[in-house]
Amino acid sequence: MRYAYLGPAGTFTEAALLSVEGARGAERRPVSSVPVALAAVRAGEVDAAMVPIENSVEGGVTATLDAVATGSELRIVREALVPISFVLVAAPGTTLADVRRVSTHSHAWAQVRGWMDDRLPGVDYVPASSTAAAALALLPGGTEREEPASRTGFDAAVCSPVVVEQHPELEVLAADIGDNRAAVTRFVLVARPEAPLPPRTGADRTTLVIPLWEDRAGALMEILEQFATRGVNLSRIESRPTGNFLGEYFFSVDVDGHILDARVADALEGLRRVCPSTRFLGSYPRADHKVATVARHHSDGAFREAEAWVAALQGHHRPTPESLPAPGSAGPA
Amino acid sequence: MRYAYLGPAGTFTEAALLSVEGARGAERRPVSSVPVALAAVRAGEVDAAMVPIENSVEGGVTATLDAVATGSELRIVREALVPISFVLVAAPGTTLADVRRVSTHSHAWAQVRGWMDDRLPGVDYVPASSTAAAALALLPGGTEREEPASRTGFDAAVCSPVVVEQHPELEVLAADIGDNRAAVTRFVLVARPEAPLPPRTGADRTTLVIPLWEDRAGALMEILEQFATRGVNLSRIESRPTGNFLGEYFFSVDVDGHILDARVADALEGLRRVCPSTRFLGSYPRADHKVATVARHHSDGAFREAEAWVAALQGHHRPTPESLPAPGSAGPA
Amino acid sequence: MRYAYLGPAGTFTEAALLSVEGARGAERRPVSSVPVALAAVRAGEVDAAMVPIENSVEGGVTATLDAVATGSELRIVREALVPISFVLVAAPGTTLADVRRVSTHSHAWAQVRGWMDDRLPGVDYVPASSTAAAALALLPGGTEREEPASRTGFDAAVCSPVVVEQHPELEVLAADIGDNRAAVTRFVLVARPEAPLPPRTGADRTTLVIPLWEDRAGALMEILEQFATRGVNLSRIESRPTGNFLGEYFFSVDVDGHILDARVADALEGLRRVCPSTRFLGSYPRADHKVATVARHHSDGAFREAEAWVAALQGHHRPTPESLPAPGSAGPA
Amino acid sequence: MRYAYLGPAGTFTEAALLSVEGARGAERRPVSSVPVALAAVRAGEVDAAMVPIENSVEGGVTATLDAVATGSELRIVREALVPISFVLVAAPGTTLADVRRVSTHSHAWAQVRGWMDDRLPGVDYVPASSTAAAALALLPGGTEREEPASRTGFDAAVCSPVVVEQHPELEVLAADIGDNRAAVTRFVLVARPEAPLPPRTGADRTTLVIPLWEDRAGALMEILEQFATRGVNLSRIESRPTGNFLGEYFFSVDVDGHILDARVADALEGLRRVCPSTRFLGSYPRADHKVATVARHHSDGAFREAEAWVAALQGHHRPTPESLPAPGSAGPA
Repeated sequence: MRYAYLGPAGTFTEAALLSVEGARGAERRPVSSVPVALAAVRAGEVDAAMVPIENSVEGGVTATLDAVATGSELRIVREALVPISFVLVAAPGTTLADVRRVSTHSHAWAQVRGWMDDRLPGVDYVPASSTAAAALALLPGGTEREEPASRTGFDAAVCSPVVVEQHPELEVLAADIGDNRAAVTRFVLVARPEAPLPPRTGADRTTLVIPLWEDRAGALMEILEQFATRGVNLSRIESRPTGNFLGEYFFSVDVDGHILDARVADALEGLRRVCPSTRFLGSYPRADHKVATVARHHSDGAFREAEAWVAALQGHHRPTPESLPAPGSAGPA
Repeated sequence: MRYAYLGPAGTFTEAALLSVEGARGAERRPVSSVPVALAAVRAGEVDAAMVPIENSVEGGVTATLDAVATGSELRIVREALVPISFVLVAAPGTTLADVRRVSTHSHAWAQVRGWMDDRLPGVDYVPASSTAAAALALLPGGTEREEPASRTGFDAAVCSPVVVEQHPELEVLAADIGDNRAAVTRFVLVARPEAPLPPRTGADRTTLVIPLWEDRAGALMEILEQFATRGVNLSRIESRPTGNFLGEYFFSVDVDGHILDARVADALEGLRRVCPSTRFLGSYPRADHKVATVARHHSDGAFREAEAWVAALQGHHRPTPESLPAPGSAGPA
Repeated sequence: MRYAYLGPAGTFTEAALLSVEGARGAERRPVSSVPVALAAVRAGEVDAAMVPIENSVEGGVTATLDAVATGSELRIVREALVPISFVLVAAPGTTLADVRRVSTHSHAWAQVRGWMDDRLPGVDYVPASSTAAAALALLPGGTEREEPASRTGFDAAVCSPVVVEQHPELEVLAADIGDNRAAVTRFVLVARPEAPLPPRTGADRTTLVIPLWEDRAGALMEILEQFATRGVNLSRIESRPTGNFLGEYFFSVDVDGHILDARVADALEGLRRVCPSTRFLGSYPRADHKVATVARHHSDGAFREAEAWVAALQGHHRPTPESLPAPGSAGPA
Repeated sequence: MRYAYLGPAGTFTEAALLSVEGARGAERRPVSSVPVALAAVRAGEVDAAMVPIENSVEGGVTATLDAVATGSELRIVREALVPISFVLVAAPGTTLADVRRVSTHSHAWAQVRGWMDDRLPGVDYVPASSTAAAALALLPGGTEREEPASRTGFDAAVCSPVVVEQHPELEVLAADIGDNRAAVTRFVLVARPEAPLPPRTGADRTTLVIPLWEDRAGALMEILEQFATRGVNLSRIESRPTGNFLGEYFFSVDVDGHILDARVADALEGLRRVCPSTRFLGSYPRADHKVATVARHHSDGAFREAEAWVAALQGHHRPTPESLPAPGSAGPA
């Protein structure tokens, strides 16, 4: 197996990838951005890519939400939850008192602002393309060693503890400096649509992309009704602009359950009818193994019983594919 | 074929039955009440019974609504619309000026009250078990001929013109005396459930009995949503008490469409899940041949396309009856 | 006070009227029908009329539902629940074995059919305009005493025990012969709209007439939402034809609560907007004193708090009647 | 008047601020971040702050959405729409062929990726804290002039044309390089809650923050119903994590209309009842002057007429603040 992930090595994303069975021994290709990672999947250069989709502090990862919503189809086949903890690192010999300028990814910076205001008031922030990149820039490139700040423009970095494991020469000035100790990021492993559908475990999640049109209150209610009338719970709903003009959205949605669950399948059929451009992004086991609570009348048994009842009433008159009007006639194109 | 109908001969119900092809040459058994007619169907003594279900002035015929809602299952296989017009009849020699007491069925009396107040103010009303019974009582029984009022207690009757066709000796004192000239009664032909399902014509009606429980606003909305989310229009909805205690109801409902229409079948499956004691009373052609308007996304094609989409996403994992949990189980383990 | 009621004396309706404080000493005018009783109220000939509105076995009393729904406005100011029990009476000297023909009102007959089939199989039914009228016809008119059946056409009557209290000369052949021992009829006392609004007791009922138009599933849902979104429970909902043509209805509805309850007032305002011809028939104490359960967020306090919050946000800009557009401009005509 | 805005001078935010009448002559304080700008408002250091809230390509500006949703209350009093166009600038003498590394804010970079892939394939990206900061870093600081790339780490910047107006010495290598020519950013002017409520113009917008709890499909539908049942249209809906844990959200919502519009006020009252921690962020004129379409039955006139109808029915019994239960009580007395 070949995997892409949002690099460089040492990011939280690599930590998520390493939680996948067999990934330690597999080819792991760090790439510079989520779009690049997904492009590698689409091009067949790798089998799957691990990318962040949601952070408990910062919200949805828009690069991921947007990249899976358009372009050729993809499938989420697995998710991973990684607790987020931050360390402040510097070149060897640096002390906390020396720190004037700190670099990290802007998302990480947002999550340590409280600690900085408290412990390093007045420190300057220097943006970086990833937490690991900021940290690695502090290490000697080979020649000059002194004055890292004059070389990089900063003298400390905020990064994942994984970077320190891989680069023990980094000086850890402070550990666990995130403002929210319970912060967690959810990552998804994205493959091509021909990947096998993960089996139904009873504790599954299904991810969808649903475009929204004109009248938002009414259209959104019509969409939500498709779930509510089948007892399908939403565990995440995020709006994203289509990019075309202000006020045009799509919704990225997670629901509890698997497409092999009758209630989820029925909701998807209803959604497909009212919103033909709905996109299915996969059914896969929840990382937290939380089993969905399903009312008796939304169970597979209730669906099957109701279907059998109607079929018996229809008798031998039940329409077969042959007796129905031709495909092109009346359905959504 | 053997038919029962609400008699005696000469009622509007017989007129409805005679509109059925072949009924003129068939056995037609007049019976004394709707329950008796339906009991004859259930017992196999006749093949079907013609009974009134709805009148444009008086509303639902409660005897029929209640009789089909309980007991062994029945199927409506046909409907008939009969314009209601009334004549005032008397024994030969009677004139309008002679009339002091008028008899008829209470429903008919309600529909001629305006005419009576206008033309025969102060006339007394004598209830009768049917319009035809009132009229026929005016005819000489064989012996005495004079003083019909002293014998029957009334000297005129309100009935259907059909009675006069069959008994030309009746004197017609006034014709077309109904207060509402557009009055019409809908009749249904009721058979046993093994009767063949009438074919789908595109202008069909489906009749259901739906029990309602506890919280009326919420439960009724949940029921109506099953129709609304599939674009199924209701053409009649009537509440009826179950007879157990005040506030316990069932609903008698007609919807546009046939159980072989995908949107109707899907709504019935949803109804069966939320309300397992829903009763199907039949799909049959509308007497007025009015074709239902169906939005593209509620068409058979849209249902089939959505089903195919989900099936393709489920792939070879699509559950078969064998792979599903046993009937009695209620959810994913 | 002067009262009209559906007579003659001895009916269940008189029993309901006698439950009203002061009614025993007041003028009580028996009339021949519900429309006549309500016409007397409208004409100012009486102050109020007691009429049946609902029976736990037979359902809504259509004559009442229709008469209060049209014509000049009326107000229900009180309700009464009367347990329905039936006795079989005859002229003195008659025994059960003598009975061949039984008379009563058709609603009463429907409620004793089981007893009749069991104890008097084969007995003939003779319709009567009221239960009391049937019973009183059995009493000697003054001259002839023998052969009541030859005179009336029947030899026993089904009526209320009240008739026997008033006419102890009637022979009671059997008591408590109703098929449903828990049968109860609800009566309402109807006055003109200028009658004082009954005070709020916390256990109140409000009665409404709501016309329904075109698309039944959608329109009915829009109506029900007005109640559901304010936590107002429906305790009765009955459909009635308008009489104009098949499929045109109005709904007669009872809701828990009083128009002085904020949630009921707000629901009525919403109903008035979506359905301007909604008719208010009164708020009055429930005869069963059952207190409505109201969620905290639907309480008067919650309404007042929300109103105060919005008013504060609007500040001194809150529109006054003077600053609003002229009355005729945009509202329902 | 004193204004804060997301600086430095030359950003799109300053362009938005300059569209405010009188802002050119007022004190304008550039600050380093949205939270800093809003903190200055809350502290009374400035009267208002101009901040971006939504971009047609990138979506909601999460820093703004989060900062106004928590902390002490704020009010949006105005909005501005600024078309987004980008220029590529460099130090004098640089040509397009010289460019190896380009710096800008990450949001801007996302919007010129297509142009870069097409015209400067292989170019490296260097993050910056703002578009203007990247551009200004290219200008000589005073001493050294040569080798800007060796000093800044990049040799070109993507920024707003406003920067070039203010610093004509910058070399424009390419103009209008945004991938989406229709891109626009919406900015809002945020003041303290005691700011006067902007007058109602008929083309207004109201912004709200609505927390969402447990069951998302059901709770979100209950919220949306508050708008739908009053005919209030949503023009923007964005979900944001509360930051506490995955799956806990609040919604940032824009609706068409002003809090002085009866339908908006009524929807806010309903929202306040079902969701007491709803936050009102202001009603203000739409920058595009688009007048809302309001159905007759949702007009101010319809609300006033319905209110008058209910008040008349309540008569002199209408509850006054004094006659109502004390604030803390929750149900009917």
